[in-house]
Amino acid sequence: MREINASIGTDKRLWRQDLAGSRAHVTMLGAQGIIPAADVTAILAGLDTIHAEYEAGGVPEDIALEDIHMTTETRLAQLIGPAAGRLHTARSRNDQVAVDFRLWVKAACAQTDAGLKALTLALLARAEEHADTIMPGFTHLQVAQPVTLGHHLLAYVEMLRRDRSRFADAAARMDECPLGSAALAGTGFPIDRAATAAALGFARPTANSLDSVSDRDFALDYLSAAALTGLHLSRFAEEIIIWASQPYGFVTLPDAWSTGSSIMPQKRNPDAAELVRAKAGHLLAAFQHLGIVMKGLPLAYSKDMQDDKAGVFAAHDTLDLCLTAMTGMTETLTFNKDRMRAAAASGFSTATDLADWLVRDAGVPFREAHEITGRAVKAAEAAGTTLDGLTDAALAAIDPRITPGVRSVLSVEASVASRTSFGGTAPANVRAAIAAAREALA
Amino acid sequence: MREINASIGTDKRLWRQDLAGSRAHVTMLGAQGIIPAADVTAILAGLDTIHAEYEAGGVPEDIALEDIHMTTETRLAQLIGPAAGRLHTARSRNDQVAVDFRLWVKAACAQTDAGLKALTLALLARAEEHADTIMPGFTHLQVAQPVTLGHHLLAYVEMLRRDRSRFADAAARMDECPLGSAALAGTGFPIDRAATAAALGFARPTANSLDSVSDRDFALDYLSAAALTGLHLSRFAEEIIIWASQPYGFVTLPDAWSTGSSIMPQKRNPDAAELVRAKAGHLLAAFQHLGIVMKGLPLAYSKDMQDDKAGVFAAHDTLDLCLTAMTGMTETLTFNKDRMRAAAASGFSTATDLADWLVRDAGVPFREAHEITGRAVKAAEAAGTTLDGLTDAALAAIDPRITPGVRSVLSVEASVASRTSFGGTAPANVRAAIAAAREALA
Amino acid sequence: MREINASIGTDKRLWRQDLAGSRAHVTMLGAQGIIPAADVTAILAGLDTIHAEYEAGGVPEDIALEDIHMTTETRLAQLIGPAAGRLHTARSRNDQVAVDFRLWVKAACAQTDAGLKALTLALLARAEEHADTIMPGFTHLQVAQPVTLGHHLLAYVEMLRRDRSRFADAAARMDECPLGSAALAGTGFPIDRAATAAALGFARPTANSLDSVSDRDFALDYLSAAALTGLHLSRFAEEIIIWASQPYGFVTLPDAWSTGSSIMPQKRNPDAAELVRAKAGHLLAAFQHLGIVMKGLPLAYSKDMQDDKAGVFAAHDTLDLCLTAMTGMTETLTFNKDRMRAAAASGFSTATDLADWLVRDAGVPFREAHEITGRAVKAAEAAGTTLDGLTDAALAAIDPRITPGVRSVLSVEASVASRTSFGGTAPANVRAAIAAAREALA
Amino acid sequence: MREINASIGTDKRLWRQDLAGSRAHVTMLGAQGIIPAADVTAILAGLDTIHAEYEAGGVPEDIALEDIHMTTETRLAQLIGPAAGRLHTARSRNDQVAVDFRLWVKAACAQTDAGLKALTLALLARAEEHADTIMPGFTHLQVAQPVTLGHHLLAYVEMLRRDRSRFADAAARMDECPLGSAALAGTGFPIDRAATAAALGFARPTANSLDSVSDRDFALDYLSAAALTGLHLSRFAEEIIIWASQPYGFVTLPDAWSTGSSIMPQKRNPDAAELVRAKAGHLLAAFQHLGIVMKGLPLAYSKDMQDDKAGVFAAHDTLDLCLTAMTGMTETLTFNKDRMRAAAASGFSTATDLADWLVRDAGVPFREAHEITGRAVKAAEAAGTTLDGLTDAALAAIDPRITPGVRSVLSVEASVASRTSFGGTAPANVRAAIAAAREALA
Repeated sequence: MREINASIGTDKRLWRQDLAGSRAHVTMLGAQGIIPAADVTAILAGLDTIHAEYEAGGVPEDIALEDIHMTTETRLAQLIGPAAGRLHTARSRNDQVAVDFRLWVKAACAQTDAGLKALTLALLARAEEHADTIMPGFTHLQVAQPVTLGHHLLAYVEMLRRDRSRFADAAARMDECPLGSAALAGTGFPIDRAATAAALGFARPTANSLDSVSDRDFALDYLSAAALTGLHLSRFAEEIIIWASQPYGFVTLPDAWSTGSSIMPQKRNPDAAELVRAKAGHLLAAFQHLGIVMKGLPLAYSKDMQDDKAGVFAAHDTLDLCLTAMTGMTETLTFNKDRMRAAAASGFSTATDLADWLVRDAGVPFREAHEITGRAVKAAEAAGTTLDGLTDAALAAIDPRITPGVRSVLSVEASVASRTSFGGTAPANVRAAIAAAREALA
Repeated sequence: MREINASIGTDKRLWRQDLAGSRAHVTMLGAQGIIPAADVTAILAGLDTIHAEYEAGGVPEDIALEDIHMTTETRLAQLIGPAAGRLHTARSRNDQVAVDFRLWVKAACAQTDAGLKALTLALLARAEEHADTIMPGFTHLQVAQPVTLGHHLLAYVEMLRRDRSRFADAAARMDECPLGSAALAGTGFPIDRAATAAALGFARPTANSLDSVSDRDFALDYLSAAALTGLHLSRFAEEIIIWASQPYGFVTLPDAWSTGSSIMPQKRNPDAAELVRAKAGHLLAAFQHLGIVMKGLPLAYSKDMQDDKAGVFAAHDTLDLCLTAMTGMTETLTFNKDRMRAAAASGFSTATDLADWLVRDAGVPFREAHEITGRAVKAAEAAGTTLDGLTDAALAAIDPRITPGVRSVLSVEASVASRTSFGGTAPANVRAAIAAAREALA
Repeated sequence: MREINASIGTDKRLWRQDLAGSRAHVTMLGAQGIIPAADVTAILAGLDTIHAEYEAGGVPEDIALEDIHMTTETRLAQLIGPAAGRLHTARSRNDQVAVDFRLWVKAACAQTDAGLKALTLALLARAEEHADTIMPGFTHLQVAQPVTLGHHLLAYVEMLRRDRSRFADAAARMDECPLGSAALAGTGFPIDRAATAAALGFARPTANSLDSVSDRDFALDYLSAAALTGLHLSRFAEEIIIWASQPYGFVTLPDAWSTGSSIMPQKRNPDAAELVRAKAGHLLAAFQHLGIVMKGLPLAYSKDMQDDKAGVFAAHDTLDLCLTAMTGMTETLTFNKDRMRAAAASGFSTATDLADWLVRDAGVPFREAHEITGRAVKAAEAAGTTLDGLTDAALAAIDPRITPGVRSVLSVEASVASRTSFGGTAPANVRAAIAAAREALA
Repeated sequence: MREINASIGTDKRLWRQDLAGSRAHVTMLGAQGIIPAADVTAILAGLDTIHAEYEAGGVPEDIALEDIHMTTETRLAQLIGPAAGRLHTARSRNDQVAVDFRLWVKAACAQTDAGLKALTLALLARAEEHADTIMPGFTHLQVAQPVTLGHHLLAYVEMLRRDRSRFADAAARMDECPLGSAALAGTGFPIDRAATAAALGFARPTANSLDSVSDRDFALDYLSAAALTGLHLSRFAEEIIIWASQPYGFVTLPDAWSTGSSIMPQKRNPDAAELVRAKAGHLLAAFQHLGIVMKGLPLAYSKDMQDDKAGVFAAHDTLDLCLTAMTGMTETLTFNKDRMRAAAASGFSTATDLADWLVRDAGVPFREAHEITGRAVKAAEAAGTTLDGLTDAALAAIDPRITPGVRSVLSVEASVASRTSFGGTAPANVRAAIAAAREALA
């Protein structure tokens, strides 16, 4: 029973939050005249001592004391005697754990945001460096149209921007203090919940005591945001893995973010990227785990809810590690521009440009333009060259409306330069987007 | 191949969005001088005809036409001839499906919000009716302290308030128009993406074309919000099922929301509540489904992403049905006040009140107050009565500091009336909370 | 990088398996003449020393050594010098970790089976004790028909029987030894894979080297079996929680498996049952986690697969704890027979018996029998009694074909005694089923 | 209510099973003398008529009739009058739906097995064709060692073999007939459950009536097996997608299993493979869905369980479609042997062979062999050639123990030929494995 019931191994991580909650609570109890000032002073001093002890030596893990709340209270009683008992006036473990965990998750949102911002900055730096670098744009992992590497990296900047807004939304939604809800029904003591909420940095107290001790939405909000971030990182990780594969050779991983082999000194396994890819599974499952736990739980507090913290802690640590690893990889990857450009030029990637040029500049109807382009591709394929490699004569032979003016779009450089619609891949757009992103970050 | 590749059976549901997107696109193409005004007029007329046809007869489902976009374009070509081809200038199926689906999900957020609001109003009405009704507050499904039924129902109002904010956040985050991103790289045509975004009711165009056609965050945001709502509903459903069980008998289900038996005419199975409880599984799994699909997908569009719509459509319909069912049940449940009050009075549910009274009004230290209360409970148990059922003399015999003044908290009515802390269960608080919730809704 | 890459914190748990695999491998290398006998002797001695060291002091956790394989090999080299290097002849970390982990999971199947058997025995003992105890059988948590508690407990025996067969199937499917698959392609050394397979207790070697190092089916098989067991335990846990709730009062939890309150000495929170219920979420999510990790991984080994062990270890420990807790609760629960019988007699639970009796013994057509029964229930309800509480005259007044012979089925005792169809709830059946289950276990 | 409660839209798919169950039941009722022979004859004739009607015109979907059982019974009453009512003697909808669904899932196991077998045969045919074809073996998607394409395809044969055993295990575990368990408690009618079990092709009747109507393990077993198959298929799909990508160019997809573009006639999008990859998400989520639904359900039947069939039907159809698509792709893919061989020869993929040769044939200690090989790789890299491209003199200059005999392993052909350990990639092994697999299939 002890083994399945105790949570100290997990929730000791909440010690700072538990002490902060107790400080705010006892200060309020004193201000409201619920307990004597002398006791307040003694309790605060005791809490300071415990803080220093935990800081120095860690939280003692006595399974008999079950959780962080009992661990702290027991120590407080040893330090200051019976007055320690007054700390628990007008509160219960149910609202105590709710406020501790909420404080922790709110701080986790801020920390994750910092990690997202760091990765964003790394992407922007590399995007700027490669605003003109040509690479193949893929659909279905088939070469489709040339794009710039800068533009490709900015796609991840957009994903991370949404991720940051998701954590910000979660943090705003959880910005309510459950302390003072007591066991489940509120209390008859004349407490001041606005005061404790303010002291702990919350925007306001929660509005319903039953909900306060039954609610783990804030943890689920963190986990769903983490799951989406994990998905985004897994996509970038997959790309790094494919790009580092010899037939691609688009990137070379630095030694710091790959593992090698004594026997094959040139080999660089993208282990970190693979692990980041895998962690999307961890993060999706963590949301699923807590969701299943909460399903169908009657109000108010049920012990099932104790199974909430380990998953959030692990998800946070995993996400933190993934963000650090992706930032490190982003900063230090070598992009092999020649390989990228060569691949971009393969697959007749400017066929759409030719068709669009026929429509736009030669007034050819859409369907006909497509049909002409199809013939041009076949001709280039037969000649073993690219569209741009066809002579003016060869192009005119396909259709007389294809004049030398088409050169303005046929090369991969011309193609990307022409795509100047808002959000398009043209280098000028990329630079403007980087500037806008930096401004938004500042 | 056709069978695995075609999506018309699913995405025909996007027909209104597809036509709206086409209207906005072709109007912009005309305004920018990209296609002739006469063609714009013809195309708009054709789209109107198709709209009327679909409205009247449904979308034809020809698997050879694969999806809603081809179905519509093919019909347009039949109606207006080759000019139909111009509609596809400067766009691609990739941005077309992105804008169609986004429009649909944005509208779904609004519809779900309306369902959440309706249930909130139903809960507020019943909470008001039962602001004074006493029921047992449970922890661990053990009778803990008396609460008011109104207060209990308001806990769900809080959950739904968070749910609404989640759909609002999702709607705000997805309020960007991907149309004009073309296949993946943007386009060289001088399109006006701000115009199409505005015409379709979006706040702004998306900022990166690769992201625009690779992104399904908006669908995941809808699904994660739906999953949390599903969890909340499953908790209420579980309570209804338990409350309707004979040993509880707290509620009687109306015929409209239960099924009976010819043989046992008094029996009322809470089928609707059970199905709502089950649907939390559907909704959690729907989020997982799309999350797993998106994991590790390289940019830009991959066909895997076609597996996005069926799950969102089904989740939306399920959630809509669940909200309707829960609103109906909430409005029509009969609460058996006598059974609830009797259960609230069992289990010595005012023991905490006695202890708090000893601390607050008799100045007894916390731990000692607990110990005295423990003795009072044992005495009442031995006497086969409640705490309130003990005589003044019996109470004083337990501890002389228990004076008749304790009657102000010992009955379940006194207990709930005393819990006036913000968010507490006192009837006055409940009424204030209802008023505040109504104001916030208005 | 080190932090995301190292696995020693997790895989140190495989030390026994790693040493066993090395012993089998080196012995085979010697027998095949691949390495000298003297080296075999030295290596085996070194492995024995390491075994003793780990046994005594635990596995040293040096993050620089990354994993259990490097940790062991490095120590071996310290102990016996360069000959240690020969151990890695004709193997690779890829097949080494595959065999280590497989050995661990195979043993875990056996251990889980022992836990399932212990719980089965506990259920059989209580079922025997309560072969005649009447309780309400529920559908939709509505009282439906009386059953015996023994019969109810045997339903879980059936679930556990299927669980055991699932772990047995999994163990049989994973009973193939991957050692000797080397990095991915097999080896040119004349190894004897049948010998290492036999030495390690496997039925045979795996048949394809690429599959051998890419496969984690055995872990998924364990996790899916664990998830189903978790679901079964969550159902029993839910019942215990509801049964322990005051309005039911069917069971009283022993102190050892509940938590109380100093203030409410009579209160017993079913914490252990709640935690078991929650753990179904953990186990379902663990399967989901590894499934997502494995999705879409190209052959052969990818580092993503390193994210396999932590989840399996945690799932196993969780399941082990849950089985222990449920066995303990099963053995020590007090069943309150009076409360159960009273609830069984409520709700006109023998209405079906009356209808069946009319059909079977009075030759009344089915539909008519139902309609008569409905009238009898209404009459009993109006008279404030049970069906059995109606007088012979009252029954005959409802329909003259209801003769006193109906008493043979109208009481709850008569009802359960009559249900003698195979698998039915009659006490005689229960005793026969217990005997059969015990025979099958032996 | 009707909309959330009715299941006819889904469970009409069980009509054959429902009629079969009724036939077996009524025949048994007659044989036991529970209902008159004339009624049996009438009911059987009526059921035959309904069978013919459904076969011809489909199942009528009247939401007022709720489910397939009521639909069929109502029709039977129309056809044969009141005798129809006798069919429901000694059974209930609870055991009826349990037997219907179980029959369906058992048949689904057989059908899925057939699909798995067909794909296995396709893989074996292509493996035989490519027993000698050289391709790179990857780890971490880095070229590691040359393997044969035949060997690679056989890895999937192994996965499918395990998949088939999983469905076989599931089918065996569910091979028990719940019919006759009635509502939940069994029945007092003298039914012969062994007879109905045998008539419906089950090995035996289920042993506990409460379990029989509460159990959906058989559906979960199907879904977990389906999820693992989905994972295996997603891995092959991912490989096809990567192999078809231009920088790889290992395979060319046939028109039948790809989609093209009028504008880029050479382009072949691997849509079918992408959809198969996505479906792993569907299948994993389907298992989760039902698992979550079943979590914590008290016995016996709860309406939540009605949410079981739609997911299983969809999973089965999805899996069926995926198996068909993968079989089609496997049969018709063109493998570009030149591209594969060239990639295999890159990346110094025979470095391990050189090291192993030094150990095995030149008696060099393991660590020293690795160090020499590292130097050889560096020398080849500097010379812009492969290991096999180094002259004898150049090799001897690296270490005099590298004699011309090393040529027996340095080429990719020599490398694969040398890996003759059981389960290794040598062409001879591949052929033997194919023969063994075919024998096992027969």
